[in-house]
Amino acid sequence: MGGKMKAPLAVTMGEPAGIGPDLILTLFAERHRRNLPAFIVFGHAGFLAARARRLGLDIAIVECTPADAGSLFADRLPVFPIAGHVVDRPGDADAAAAPVVIAAIEAAVAATLAGACRAVVTAPINKAALYQAGFRHPGHTEFLADLTAQGGVPKLPVMMLAHGDLRTVPLTIHVPIKDVPGLVTGPLIVETLAVMAEDLRRRFGIAAPKIAVAGLNPHAGEDGAIGREDVEIIAPALALARAGGIDAVGPLPADTLFYPPHWRQFDAVLAMYHDQALIPIKTVAFDAGVNVTLGLPIVRTSPDHGTAFGLAGSGKASPSSFSAAIEMAHTMTMQEA
Amino acid sequence: MGGKMKAPLAVTMGEPAGIGPDLILTLFAERHRRNLPAFIVFGHAGFLAARARRLGLDIAIVECTPADAGSLFADRLPVFPIAGHVVDRPGDADAAAAPVVIAAIEAAVAATLAGACRAVVTAPINKAALYQAGFRHPGHTEFLADLTAQGGVPKLPVMMLAHGDLRTVPLTIHVPIKDVPGLVTGPLIVETLAVMAEDLRRRFGIAAPKIAVAGLNPHAGEDGAIGREDVEIIAPALALARAGGIDAVGPLPADTLFYPPHWRQFDAVLAMYHDQALIPIKTVAFDAGVNVTLGLPIVRTSPDHGTAFGLAGSGKASPSSFSAAIEMAHTMTMQEA
Repeated sequence: MGGKMKAPLAVTMGEPAGIGPDLILTLFAERHRRNLPAFIVFGHAGFLAARARRLGLDIAIVECTPADAGSLFADRLPVFPIAGHVVDRPGDADAAAAPVVIAAIEAAVAATLAGACRAVVTAPINKAALYQAGFRHPGHTEFLADLTAQGGVPKLPVMMLAHGDLRTVPLTIHVPIKDVPGLVTGPLIVETLAVMAEDLRRRFGIAAPKIAVAGLNPHAGEDGAIGREDVEIIAPALALARAGGIDAVGPLPADTLFYPPHWRQFDAVLAMYHDQALIPIKTVAFDAGVNVTLGLPIVRTSPDHGTAFGLAGSGKASPSSFSAAIEMAHTMTMQEA
Repeated sequence: MGGKMKAPLAVTMGEPAGIGPDLILTLFAERHRRNLPAFIVFGHAGFLAARARRLGLDIAIVECTPADAGSLFADRLPVFPIAGHVVDRPGDADAAAAPVVIAAIEAAVAATLAGACRAVVTAPINKAALYQAGFRHPGHTEFLADLTAQGGVPKLPVMMLAHGDLRTVPLTIHVPIKDVPGLVTGPLIVETLAVMAEDLRRRFGIAAPKIAVAGLNPHAGEDGAIGREDVEIIAPALALARAGGIDAVGPLPADTLFYPPHWRQFDAVLAMYHDQALIPIKTVAFDAGVNVTLGLPIVRTSPDHGTAFGLAGSGKASPSSFSAAIEMAHTMTMQEA
């Protein structure tokens, strides 16, 4: 392991009224048993201490910089302190905390871009509270794309859901179904495939990635009998991608693609819309899937769940997905080294 | 068991160039080991004998009526003969066989309506070949709805996919995604739920069926933030259905609905479109799911796969789904008795 490998992972605090802080604290408490790599939390130290007490976790918190986090992690939870007003009220979102939530993400990204941290693992945020504080991005992923552009043109961030070897990417994400057909365009398909192929190589160590592409319509349109997009848009885009050296196969009927003997023939699946990509992952791995952002200059993972206000502060939320997100960020940055 | 229980199941031959005949013959050969109920095949006897020889199966075929099938089934494969031109050429669809395929379905339905058979189990058809012969229905299901209407107004046939206790119904089926939002209407949702509730009671023995309804848009629209249909169309339709005594819950986010601890809280799931309903079933039960038509005056099941021309005549096709379809038709008609 080179020097870079000793850098900690940057974990953002996320929405304080949600389960993100609970899971971070729980995972720190279980770090030895789970053999987790060192991480530093970007967030409000006083709030984290209060939440730990509420959860009955005996955790010593140390405010420090990323440079010291690796050696401190064995005994204390390293926190890069973000000042502001954050109170411990599980389930009760407070817009006053939004600036801290946003600043934590900004600081974690800056530290990772600077090489002081290896990757960013983000806890769930509560977009409604952030919007009240002036946040103007559709979500975490787009915010990270802007931050990592450092004033230049943001790259295309690509959301991938992963569980073991099942990796799915929705081409379109949080848009109404009625808007999906218009957003399924040749350029978006080709660019998304290019990002997938590059990151599967660079960050997953897959030398010659093979990507399955799901059709938009039932049975991938049955040669145009059920909708024209599969024939007129998706198939030509795949031909273009293949001409550019990307091993993309499709459009394939989405209903049979996620049967394990089928998807296992591929390193990843590009689906056309949210539920097409997420139903298979959540059906088999509801609480253990990881959300990975491809296409950024840094590695970013997150658990594949939301703030779950109803569970916050209870100690009952499952840390499986968050733990998997930390492990995946670790593995991806080992690959890259 | 009453007299009706001794009536055989009616199995249609399906597309002769596909795997349907292979699976029927294989299941007959394995009827004792699989403990299958008696069935009679509606189809071309000479063709079936030729396919059996090709598969190396030593099967004696007996032409007979449904009344004699039950007692003959132990030793010979009962076939209700349909005259016409059918040759044994696996994978090579021949429009000349289409009239036989269609007549077999008509005869099987007539026998079942008359009470001579208990239920219809259909083998896969090849719509392209049938269309050349003048077939004018979008599919099997609609054809059966017309046949069972006996000149009256056809009922709403409802397609359900089932595997064990996971039962999913797509509200819209073989239509392009771009047409789905316009087809998701309140009356269709209410009528479909009524058919589901009635048949879950009558044919599945579920006294108080509880039905989950998936949202159309990602996260069921997030209270209207991602598309208005979930708020404006689906939610009011569910309120109406509940006022009519149907225990329907939703709209629920589709991505997390098919995690087993979630769907197991319900007796069935109503999804809004083809892939939303079929991805979860085929992901967990690719070759063992059953297609059931609800809302008809007769019980009809079929395997949840197509003609698979590439496998026809090879003996390599899995009979799991066809076997499950026969068993489900048997169980459903036992419930009804």
